[in-house]
Amino acid sequence: MKKVAVILSGCGVYDGAEIHEAVLCLLHLARQGASYQCFAPDKPQHHVVNHLSGEEEPGSRNVLEEAARIARGDIKPLTELKVDDFDALLLPGGFGAAKNLCDFAAHGADAQVDPQVLSVCKDFAAARKPAGYCCISPILMPRVYPAGVKGTIGTEAAVAEAFTAMGGEHIGCAVTDVVEDSHYQVISTPAYMLAKNITEADTGIGKLVKRLLEM
Amino acid sequence: MKKVAVILSGCGVYDGAEIHEAVLCLLHLARQGASYQCFAPDKPQHHVVNHLSGEEEPGSRNVLEEAARIARGDIKPLTELKVDDFDALLLPGGFGAAKNLCDFAAHGADAQVDPQVLSVCKDFAAARKPAGYCCISPILMPRVYPAGVKGTIGTEAAVAEAFTAMGGEHIGCAVTDVVEDSHYQVISTPAYMLAKNITEADTGIGKLVKRLLEM
Repeated sequence: MKKVAVILSGCGVYDGAEIHEAVLCLLHLARQGASYQCFAPDKPQHHVVNHLSGEEEPGSRNVLEEAARIARGDIKPLTELKVDDFDALLLPGGFGAAKNLCDFAAHGADAQVDPQVLSVCKDFAAARKPAGYCCISPILMPRVYPAGVKGTIGTEAAVAEAFTAMGGEHIGCAVTDVVEDSHYQVISTPAYMLAKNITEADTGIGKLVKRLLEM
Repeated sequence: MKKVAVILSGCGVYDGAEIHEAVLCLLHLARQGASYQCFAPDKPQHHVVNHLSGEEEPGSRNVLEEAARIARGDIKPLTELKVDDFDALLLPGGFGAAKNLCDFAAHGADAQVDPQVLSVCKDFAAARKPAGYCCISPILMPRVYPAGVKGTIGTEAAVAEAFTAMGGEHIGCAVTDVVEDSHYQVISTPAYMLAKNITEADTGIGKLVKRLLEM
């Protein structure tokens, strides 16, 4: 049974992990016979967004504690993720990937990745173990892999340009499809960067998980 | 296209809607060609639970605002749910159903249902429109339907006894199956009352949604 590490970035599309994507990742992993363990950085979220109004609200929440909601409590701090224990890595999207795993939401193409996240992702790359990035999380790829790594963030021009400016090769991709860089063993899918409904996200994520487990 | 109203009770298994169940409900509705609209009561949660430690924590969160995380912001207050606008009703589980939709978690078989929730659920029952209850949410059924209504909360003796004490007829049921009361047009499945993993919950919820849309 293949073991996959899943990195979550909170709980909720506007300030954390996109919930549908995260659950669909877990569902497809389990359906396709893989086991998984969720991880998240143990640190405060960039901020908290009221998902009803869409506006920032006062207060602080912890990325690991909120991500634990998606994982039903079965989650570990990212410091405990050892590449030797897993066959593959998987990152759902949501603004949390661009606010808590890196600071792309604030700094665009100048984004820096959280040092723990960067270290773990680079470990999987160095070990030539496959990794899957969904939605906005491929924005981490140009910081993790050498220049020219191929990935997709859908078709939104500004984000695609940032991906290119950071050193990646952006490839436009339908929501139901994936972009695979077989040299670096990394695969990406647009998910809710493009998805108009949950079934579209489900199709792309299902395909990504299938290929991730085959790689 | 059938229209289904989904009532959420927050966001997270220990103090709100069980996230996997909620997403699986939306996924199966969309896959099976139904449209849906999420609703939640606009009121404070019973309490807030740290899902990493499992312990209650200080602070207050609003049921509707937290449920909006699962609905990606597309949610309405329960006061706007009119039975005439929908063909069916669906309630995922999670402790939120027993803490925010009713007070079963605190009062057991003496539980009272939130008046808005009770009113809406009774409207669907009176209109003889089908309703689906997952996980612990069937505990509402004996308050919504006349005595003898058939439902399942899995196989946990204490909860099954409470269901019976409240006037329902409890029927033990495998996690991958459903219990249907064709007289009252109401259907239930154990989901995470019994599920050991997400695929088990998925199977039962998929079956529940299929029958809900056929009823």
